Amino acid sequence: MSSTKQINVAEYLYARLLQLGCDSLHGLPGDFNLLACDYVRSSGLNWVGSCNELNAAYAADAYARVRGLGAIMTTFGVGELSAVNGIAGSFAELAPVVHIVGTPTRASQSQGAMLHHTLGNGDFRIFADMFSRITVAQADLKDPATAPAEIDRVLRRCYTETKPVYIELPVDMVTQTVDASLLDTPIDVSMQRGDPDAESMVLGIILEKLYAARRPVFLVDGAAQRRRLMPSAEKLFEKAQIPVFVAPMGKGAIDESLPYFVGTYAGDGCNPEVKEALEASDLIITLGNIKSDLNTAGFTYRFSKLNTIDLHWDHCDFGYAHFSKVSYHSLLPRLTNAIETSKLQPTATIIPNIPRATLPTNGGDAITHEWLWPRISSFLQSGDILVADTGTSYIGVWEMTLPKDVRVITQILWSSIGYGIPAAQGAGLAAKDLGKGQRTICFEGDGSLQCTVQELATIIRHGLDVTMFVIENEGYTIERLVHLPADAHYNDIPQWQYHKLPEVLTPLANKDKVKTWRIESRAELDGLLSDRSFAEGKGLQFVEIHMDKLDAPRMLKEFGGRAAKAG
Amino acid sequence: MSSTKQINVAEYLYARLLQLGCDSLHGLPGDFNLLACDYVRSSGLNWVGSCNELNAAYAADAYARVRGLGAIMTTFGVGELSAVNGIAGSFAELAPVVHIVGTPTRASQSQGAMLHHTLGNGDFRIFADMFSRITVAQADLKDPATAPAEIDRVLRRCYTETKPVYIELPVDMVTQTVDASLLDTPIDVSMQRGDPDAESMVLGIILEKLYAARRPVFLVDGAAQRRRLMPSAEKLFEKAQIPVFVAPMGKGAIDESLPYFVGTYAGDGCNPEVKEALEASDLIITLGNIKSDLNTAGFTYRFSKLNTIDLHWDHCDFGYAHFSKVSYHSLLPRLTNAIETSKLQPTATIIPNIPRATLPTNGGDAITHEWLWPRISSFLQSGDILVADTGTSYIGVWEMTLPKDVRVITQILWSSIGYGIPAAQGAGLAAKDLGKGQRTICFEGDGSLQCTVQELATIIRHGLDVTMFVIENEGYTIERLVHLPADAHYNDIPQWQYHKLPEVLTPLANKDKVKTWRIESRAELDGLLSDRSFAEGKGLQFVEIHMDKLDAPRMLKEFGGRAAKAG
Repeated sequence: MSSTKQINVAEYLYARLLQLGCDSLHGLPGDFNLLACDYVRSSGLNWVGSCNELNAAYAADAYARVRGLGAIMTTFGVGELSAVNGIAGSFAELAPVVHIVGTPTRASQSQGAMLHHTLGNGDFRIFADMFSRITVAQADLKDPATAPAEIDRVLRRCYTETKPVYIELPVDMVTQTVDASLLDTPIDVSMQRGDPDAESMVLGIILEKLYAARRPVFLVDGAAQRRRLMPSAEKLFEKAQIPVFVAPMGKGAIDESLPYFVGTYAGDGCNPEVKEALEASDLIITLGNIKSDLNTAGFTYRFSKLNTIDLHWDHCDFGYAHFSKVSYHSLLPRLTNAIETSKLQPTATIIPNIPRATLPTNGGDAITHEWLWPRISSFLQSGDILVADTGTSYIGVWEMTLPKDVRVITQILWSSIGYGIPAAQGAGLAAKDLGKGQRTICFEGDGSLQCTVQELATIIRHGLDVTMFVIENEGYTIERLVHLPADAHYNDIPQWQYHKLPEVLTPLANKDKVKTWRIESRAELDGLLSDRSFAEGKGLQFVEIHMDKLDAPRMLKEFGGRAAKAG
Repeated sequence: MSSTKQINVAEYLYARLLQLGCDSLHGLPGDFNLLACDYVRSSGLNWVGSCNELNAAYAADAYARVRGLGAIMTTFGVGELSAVNGIAGSFAELAPVVHIVGTPTRASQSQGAMLHHTLGNGDFRIFADMFSRITVAQADLKDPATAPAEIDRVLRRCYTETKPVYIELPVDMVTQTVDASLLDTPIDVSMQRGDPDAESMVLGIILEKLYAARRPVFLVDGAAQRRRLMPSAEKLFEKAQIPVFVAPMGKGAIDESLPYFVGTYAGDGCNPEVKEALEASDLIITLGNIKSDLNTAGFTYRFSKLNTIDLHWDHCDFGYAHFSKVSYHSLLPRLTNAIETSKLQPTATIIPNIPRATLPTNGGDAITHEWLWPRISSFLQSGDILVADTGTSYIGVWEMTLPKDVRVITQILWSSIGYGIPAAQGAGLAAKDLGKGQRTICFEGDGSLQCTVQELATIIRHGLDVTMFVIENEGYTIERLVHLPADAHYNDIPQWQYHKLPEVLTPLANKDKVKTWRIESRAELDGLLSDRSFAEGKGLQFVEIHMDKLDAPRMLKEFGGRAAKAG
């Protein structure tokens, strides 16, 4: 008999996270996960130590978007419930986050013991039931014999469906042992494939329509980006050379300097020339389109469903015809391979030439959104991670033209204010773990900042390279535009001395390591952005920018009211 | 035909909150509650404008404990889900909080529209389903005809069961009108009454046992306090004159300077003399006892169930016999009336004389828990509201002797760190609304502070009288004691310059209104506590106290490990 190496359940779980590219575990210690915390570092995982669980969840979401998998660990009840909004956001926005909850011993649970962190009613299933509604798979690790398979099952779903999963780890299960050699077989995380015959049929229809179309276009959206379709899609675009548009949730999916890239399409909420260019098409092939109110600027797509092919991970729609058993993951390579460009109409590859937004020279020296976003566009560089919080910032990003390989992190569907700082922390940590020296740049409103401000301390603590622009505009500007009167008192917030925050959140000894600016004019900001040292983006750079409380990106001014009415 | 005055649904709801003593509404604006926000001030409610929803929920919980009802308003999805932990805490800890959620229009919901703040799957019931597990009643106000009755139904349950309720207010329901004269009939909020016959039987047994007991005692606990039993209980104690103890969750329920008050009983986790005094009893009548792990110091009650009568709001237990249909609300006045003190055993009214904790003179000048809590005891005065966050602070309170009418706000069952600052905000606002000039005094650990620090800004913004003691002891000390090794890295937190926080969170113009201290010795703290101006407790007074990272109240040191093992 040969002896096999034994590891414990926590170590097995952590090893699997590492195998899937998750090098850091966000979260907080709590009574029911302390023992599990003991094995984090020794397993080779970096423990983040977030300030609170909602922030940890937001951060893990952004980490997942950069690395392919993110994870948080919380304690039963109080800890996990603080993270609900963050996990629900990952569900809506397709971020693969593993939520590990340290739960009481199996014995305490089966006895219905009146423990702290419970509701006092002996019911230990309530919180798990809640999470079952906002995660795609769940595992309660109560049996050492099945724990490895259960872990593998939910991690596979997390990775391949790019949605959160929920794992309960009872205190007395942490040190139960399993066979370490199980780790030699990687989890199968190949993406969903369709039925070959169904896809052959769909392929034929697509090609027929493509060859007949005078002005076919592609529209890339969020689900294609989050579900890892882009490498495959890029090959298709490269071969077809027909115009490509991006929807707001798809920003960053594609290199916007490519010749066939046209612009950001969002119905009535986008540049009128871009709008016209897409809506003149007689065949719109969408990839992972998400027809949400904001992503469509209040449901204002102005083209016929009859001219549309919607490709998704588990189905596709031709106008009013629905095909299940089709996945763009397996379909797209076949399409790329099959397409004969000589059969495309000569007009199919004409790319509308729409001038990019330029810096306005009017408007004085005050920083306006009209000026800010084009100016930031030219500050961006390949490799940047751009986080924009819900509010004027995430709409501003629509107006930008992005260099190649800029990852955009926003929540256009979920739209939870306060996501920005923790997301910047998660993204900055992911960049650090990747070790390629990428900058993380975050745009954050003042109201959003107040929700989650403490996570600046985690950015400082881990020495992350985050450049944070805080828009000081006296409150919830997006709400002022969504519902009048614009000066409604409830959209006001207390005025903080934002630029002094980093110093307060820094140990005295590291005081000189954080840099802050307070910027009130275009000239000042322009000077800062042109500074080479600033442009390196090292450490926490905290820039408080003052803007008018009623200024906003044009799209927001125009469709704000409509989005609210649609609600 | 006479015309009746019409008001809208939001105004009706707000008027009912005001009638029940809730003068302030916590929360944040969001797309689906903006219209409802429009009617808050005009209805006479004070709008708080919290920094985030979890903090709003914590604050409403503390407000409810002081005023009898608290309320928060959030927006659908993102807003409400951020508050889950807070509402679950109110459920566990018996705080009557009304959670109003602004939801999308009825039409959007029935169409399953893909709106922002949804999961994108057309399901608008998921969040309400979650809240149905942590609230005692729910109402979805979709019909103007039934909205007033629905509001009254859930508010009655909230008030009388002192647990949270959940109200969905669709955007298009806000301005639907109802008859204002309905408000002339107050909601019946009389507390639960038992069945008279069942109570007669129970009364007979209690009296028989009381008259036979040589050393009967009362043990007052959290549920009696939260369920508004104390005025009635005090009459009973006053007449019976037998010894009264309090459990940790009942701290503040009773005037501890009364001659028949003995001390705080918590099994093995309390003063040994108090423990001995209670456990020598041959009849222990408990009022609203909560036998949770921490409240019993790890399930270490050392007395026989056969000698115990447990009285609750909806049942009572004599040893192993269970009586439903009995409520202490209706039973206690009858008991007080029926008891004939001449029939008590002569020994029944002998009060054990246990010396109160005194200031230790040893230990040098460093601030220790052994020194701190007796010192704070003498700083307290009648009327104070004492908030202590989960950690060393809420255990420290057990060791204090409280003056009359000190309200203690802690979460011994739910134990969610970060509750302290928002709770101090809610309590301070409740005190302000009451207008009696009460001080709110909060003890907060550094780790807890980092969870919810932003709500200091709301304390400042509303000009609340909050004296905040922040214990700087380098991390999660309670976790260091619950699970070894004590220096585990995950219990470390980044070191902030806490005393500089208030200035940063204050508009520049009000800079001089906040006062901060950084205290490292007994002499300094003693001096501060003796300062008459400081003792007035006006405005935000922020005191950073440095303590050793492994020091803790004796009880925590002793039962920390046991509580964890029980988990």
